[in-house]
Amino acid sequence: MKKIEVALGERSYPIFIGSGLLGRPDIPGPFVRSKKVMIVTNETVAPLYLDRVKPMFASFETDAVILPDGESFKNLETLNLIFTQLLTCRHSRHTTLIALGGGVIGDMAGFAAACYQRGVDFLQIPTTLLAQVDSSVGGKTAVNHAMGKNMIGAFYQPKAVLIDTDTLKTLPPRELSAGLAEVIKYGLIADDAFYGWLQRNIKGLTRLQSDLIEHAIDVSCRCKSKIVATDEKEAGIRAILNLGHTFGHAIETHCGYGNWLHGEAVAVGMLMALELSYREGAISSTDVSALKALLENAGLPVLGPREMSFDDYMAVMSVDKKVLDGSLRLVLLDRIGQAKVTADFAVASLRSVINQYTA
Amino acid sequence: MKKIEVALGERSYPIFIGSGLLGRPDIPGPFVRSKKVMIVTNETVAPLYLDRVKPMFASFETDAVILPDGESFKNLETLNLIFTQLLTCRHSRHTTLIALGGGVIGDMAGFAAACYQRGVDFLQIPTTLLAQVDSSVGGKTAVNHAMGKNMIGAFYQPKAVLIDTDTLKTLPPRELSAGLAEVIKYGLIADDAFYGWLQRNIKGLTRLQSDLIEHAIDVSCRCKSKIVATDEKEAGIRAILNLGHTFGHAIETHCGYGNWLHGEAVAVGMLMALELSYREGAISSTDVSALKALLENAGLPVLGPREMSFDDYMAVMSVDKKVLDGSLRLVLLDRIGQAKVTADFAVASLRSVINQYTA
Repeated sequence: MKKIEVALGERSYPIFIGSGLLGRPDIPGPFVRSKKVMIVTNETVAPLYLDRVKPMFASFETDAVILPDGESFKNLETLNLIFTQLLTCRHSRHTTLIALGGGVIGDMAGFAAACYQRGVDFLQIPTTLLAQVDSSVGGKTAVNHAMGKNMIGAFYQPKAVLIDTDTLKTLPPRELSAGLAEVIKYGLIADDAFYGWLQRNIKGLTRLQSDLIEHAIDVSCRCKSKIVATDEKEAGIRAILNLGHTFGHAIETHCGYGNWLHGEAVAVGMLMALELSYREGAISSTDVSALKALLENAGLPVLGPREMSFDDYMAVMSVDKKVLDGSLRLVLLDRIGQAKVTADFAVASLRSVINQYTA
Repeated sequence: MKKIEVALGERSYPIFIGSGLLGRPDIPGPFVRSKKVMIVTNETVAPLYLDRVKPMFASFETDAVILPDGESFKNLETLNLIFTQLLTCRHSRHTTLIALGGGVIGDMAGFAAACYQRGVDFLQIPTTLLAQVDSSVGGKTAVNHAMGKNMIGAFYQPKAVLIDTDTLKTLPPRELSAGLAEVIKYGLIADDAFYGWLQRNIKGLTRLQSDLIEHAIDVSCRCKSKIVATDEKEAGIRAILNLGHTFGHAIETHCGYGNWLHGEAVAVGMLMALELSYREGAISSTDVSALKALLENAGLPVLGPREMSFDDYMAVMSVDKKVLDGSLRLVLLDRIGQAKVTADFAVASLRSVINQYTA
């Protein structure tokens, strides 16, 4: 088992990564300060793991709330179901929420923890690769608004993150690929050696070779932890974690949440970001085609939705959170392994890039 | 004009109190760091003050959202109207919300500011006495859940609070009285000299004598600021601000939000708390009857709703935020001017007290 410490002063917390963590009460135990816990999960994950997770909290009064599955339910209405269950089961502000599931569950349970009675503790038990390498780490919690993704939320850190790599065995291949998009992102923005390692090992990763998967999660979580520790509330450098996300959010929003997986949309978005970086003279065309090959080997799409025009992208991107009072800022690369946030690119290039990567 | 500083480290902020503040752009100006502001107000306050407040932000792009008026609208659904307006008017995370109205507006605009894009700035311009002496100061923001008041919220401090005492001239007398309940509370929990002053000046206060009103608001805000600075997130001492509120919340919840004003419910709740303090041997029966007289002189009710039984109170009070993992804790007095939070009282006394103060 590996352990990473996210260094955030009094909000610091550990990430545990390994096989066979589910079922072990010794790992979460020290991080629960309440008598009661509420497990927040969904209809897909509950039949798979709820019975294995409950005994981890055997020394606490354990309740659960099972939400509908999917990004389309990541809204205030579903959030309210968590509050209703907490109140029905009479949880006080001295309770602990346990997020058991993918990124949607983590974001919602985390935001519910941030808001319930003005803030209660929570733990993350992410069961998808995407949640394990990205959304469970760093304290970004949110729900969507009909007009934009993650528009309503909080920075709120968990007390611990428990990553059992065995849960990936039940993950549909499409979702595994979506998670790999975020893993690839860490190589692109911060670690060219890791990026090379990913290019060499992508097939083993898609086959869930356990030593490879554990290494990929470990490096990803370390990379994210380091960036988050430097800039918890995204005043600056943390924004590079959004490589491909501004394009990606446009795809997800336009197509309706859930039709494109987050990681799939980010994959196309990263390719657009690299193409734009190339056109701005920062990287080579070989870098772009290498990413395209890597994404394809990871089982990810490399073209945006056929029906989306440049104007469709801009309609969403212009209200994106990364728009700083009017000027569109994007994460671009200086080179493989180094990213920056910039508004310094030609709109004509942006238009051409979007058209190029539209089916 | 008086100025109070709420000492909360990097979250410190000033409270300005005086006549004729509305319309002056020099006061809020230094506290707006964005290009845009969004005024959040309601259907009652907008016709009275929106045109006077807009010029205060003349050097910023100013939008407004006008919500329905009343505690019954203090929920996630109405909160979402603020988010929709922010997105429609393309406000980025570098925006500032201006809460213009009473406690409900302040609580909702503040919580919206805490959540919109994971946190934006906000200012408070409270227009009711209750909001001026209580809810606009201290950073408690929230909306209600159908099963409990203020169950969903955040601790989130404004950048400044602007109190124009002239706004009280348009306040219905019933709401002025409701605000006086919270003013009286500060005397009871922390300042027996102020309590004596209130007993001597209550008639002048109900007649809105301006020097008296300004003094009462100043002392109240100083008292609250001091307590909040000691215990921002209510880990301990801050809870004494809830004198009468556990009973009061039961009344508001049982009767449906909005039928009883918050201050009216708190008035009856404080009387119950003092009666219980008397029965537990801490204060005299004269102290209780003196409060009853003061509340009556302030135009406040001194009996709870006829239709509420002891069990009705307990049904709500047992899920109240002040219930610490099962045991009901109440704010009681040691003496006039000194309060404590305690679970040390006889349930039989509690039952008898509730029955005594039910019409």
